Amino acid sequence: MNPESLAWNEKLVGVPGGAIRLDTPALVLDLDAFEANLAAMAAFARARGVKLRPHAKTHKSVTVARRQLEAGEVVGFCCAKLGEAEALARGGIDGLLLTAPVTGESKVGRLLALHARLRELLIVVDDPDNVHELAAATDGAGKRLRVLVVVDVGSHRFGAPSLEDALALGRLVASLPSLELVGIQGYAGRIQHIRDYREREVATRSVNAQLARIRDAFGEAGLPCRIVTGSGTGTHDPDARLGVFSELQVGSYPFMDVDYLACDLTGDETERFRPALFVWTRVVSNRHPGFVTTDAGSKSFATDGPAPVVAAGAPPGSIYSMFGDQFGRIDLPPGSERLRVGTLVRCIAPHCDPTVNLWDHLVCVRGDTVEAVWPIEGRGAVA
Amino acid sequence: MNPESLAWNEKLVGVPGGAIRLDTPALVLDLDAFEANLAAMAAFARARGVKLRPHAKTHKSVTVARRQLEAGEVVGFCCAKLGEAEALARGGIDGLLLTAPVTGESKVGRLLALHARLRELLIVVDDPDNVHELAAATDGAGKRLRVLVVVDVGSHRFGAPSLEDALALGRLVASLPSLELVGIQGYAGRIQHIRDYREREVATRSVNAQLARIRDAFGEAGLPCRIVTGSGTGTHDPDARLGVFSELQVGSYPFMDVDYLACDLTGDETERFRPALFVWTRVVSNRHPGFVTTDAGSKSFATDGPAPVVAAGAPPGSIYSMFGDQFGRIDLPPGSERLRVGTLVRCIAPHCDPTVNLWDHLVCVRGDTVEAVWPIEGRGAVA
Repeated sequence: MNPESLAWNEKLVGVPGGAIRLDTPALVLDLDAFEANLAAMAAFARARGVKLRPHAKTHKSVTVARRQLEAGEVVGFCCAKLGEAEALARGGIDGLLLTAPVTGESKVGRLLALHARLRELLIVVDDPDNVHELAAATDGAGKRLRVLVVVDVGSHRFGAPSLEDALALGRLVASLPSLELVGIQGYAGRIQHIRDYREREVATRSVNAQLARIRDAFGEAGLPCRIVTGSGTGTHDPDARLGVFSELQVGSYPFMDVDYLACDLTGDETERFRPALFVWTRVVSNRHPGFVTTDAGSKSFATDGPAPVVAAGAPPGSIYSMFGDQFGRIDLPPGSERLRVGTLVRCIAPHCDPTVNLWDHLVCVRGDTVEAVWPIEGRGAVA
Repeated sequence: MNPESLAWNEKLVGVPGGAIRLDTPALVLDLDAFEANLAAMAAFARARGVKLRPHAKTHKSVTVARRQLEAGEVVGFCCAKLGEAEALARGGIDGLLLTAPVTGESKVGRLLALHARLRELLIVVDDPDNVHELAAATDGAGKRLRVLVVVDVGSHRFGAPSLEDALALGRLVASLPSLELVGIQGYAGRIQHIRDYREREVATRSVNAQLARIRDAFGEAGLPCRIVTGSGTGTHDPDARLGVFSELQVGSYPFMDVDYLACDLTGDETERFRPALFVWTRVVSNRHPGFVTTDAGSKSFATDGPAPVVAAGAPPGSIYSMFGDQFGRIDLPPGSERLRVGTLVRCIAPHCDPTVNLWDHLVCVRGDTVEAVWPIEGRGAVA
């Protein structure tokens, strides 16, 4: 928390031209781009007849979730961790799907409290012991816990490793009175960032085929499977065309990031989504030729993927790198004028999910006006 | 924030054997190791006749700062960012040195407020324009702002690039009535992690020689230079022996991390400091042979350096890697038994500073008892 910096930035809300005076570094949301991204995904889903269950692991924000709901075609939200779901529930968001197994004393207790509080909570399972644990905990809860079987579609992170295994889990869930089997989940994280559309389409075609086989086997076995959930911003387009998923777990599209901007998401090189998430930083030292030092380092940007990309404030061809945890370095192209101390530089977020998780607030800007400051209620909710 | 997880862990404070029941993932401080590290650094400084100004960028915690004070030989604290200093000041910690230049409208305003509040605030400068900005702001403040000239000792991140430049800055500061020149700073971040003691000693010998020349030139020019500050956990031993620094800006020693544990810090292979900072995580899925999935990924560990090291809970030779943002993967050595879901695994923090910055609380454990939960007040205070 950084109350003095927050207070400064909140005082700028509505002040004409106030954005240029922001205390930096700051995580900045370009509202025009953000709203266009929400509208584009809703229009796409509507046209394709598929629903959206946006993944809240990306934004961890009640306000962003509300905006996604308002944009349409949203049936609920995904959460990777219980803490994210609790943060959304406190903000009045319902219809939450926990996309990873929840096990153990503390977590199952928290899950029960959330189950009691929400209209709809859905959970995935990949292990018979965990199914029994959940069934015992929800026995007598008054309403059944909705369960999906999570299927391993290649990452091996979670999931039933075979069709037979998925069927056995489905049968077990269906046999337990405190649980309600509602479907299957398969999330192919590893293929989301394949840059070429056709190559990504080929990869997700086999994921779709695998899930269709399991869905059909559930049907033949008399097991309910009204939800087939998965997909992501990377494969949303081919997944919607292939038609196996009843809902898409799209995460990054409201913000976009350096990774996804490098991918052809639509197959025709048109851009469905625009960069909306930035870190604004200022030059704090320029005592050496060829580069300057800025105020945003690896405590302001995720470091698990590409470097931030300079979008404005430094000449084209400028390269951003980390200068330790608290500072950045911008190498300027040959022949550039030295940037003055105080120069504002706007960087496209590198990997958006872990970048957002470093920040307590999103500063929302439209043009050169600060329109709002939104809390990131689920920041750090990793448990 | 993750209030439900925090509430669970706080309820375990003082419960016999409660540590094993912690909600995970959690950032855990081994109090025995932590206290031994504080005592070892204080004893070392006492024996060598040098003072400590621990860097709070590592821990961002009022309670850790208080413990460092109690351990002795501490003259104050370093902060990389104004927000860290504000967080410590709110907790009653004084004697704060801002180790990077503070420039611009919002920051200088906040600096003034902090200057008014604290008994002692020190700031570094590397730019004449910034010196004038600070002098104008503090003019009429009632007490002088203490200023050090920061010297570039090789990283080129900040600092006067030459002796002449440092002298000119010193003369300028000394000429301005609202500022008080107190010394010089040189921090050689790039050499702190040289693994071999002798090689690191050679590198810091030239840093010490450079700073001694500037200190002597200040003396000959009649400029005050009562403080020579810099050093770090990596070079603290040779720096104390070389005798140029009046105080050491040691940061990581209370916690240690995978990087520093790989360094010979004392020159004789003895360990002055022990690993004290851990991320505790649990196995959440084990459906594939040879590895398991845990509940701590790149939102729980810094990713700018080495991988976390498994200290307990998995067989020797187990390898931790990130399995996305929210999950980890432990590859088990050949022939290992599969770890059960729920198994508690304790990992040594990879790079401690950015790891701590992901967490809102330190869970303090002694043996198998949770003794306290400390807030990390300066988490995210990057502005």
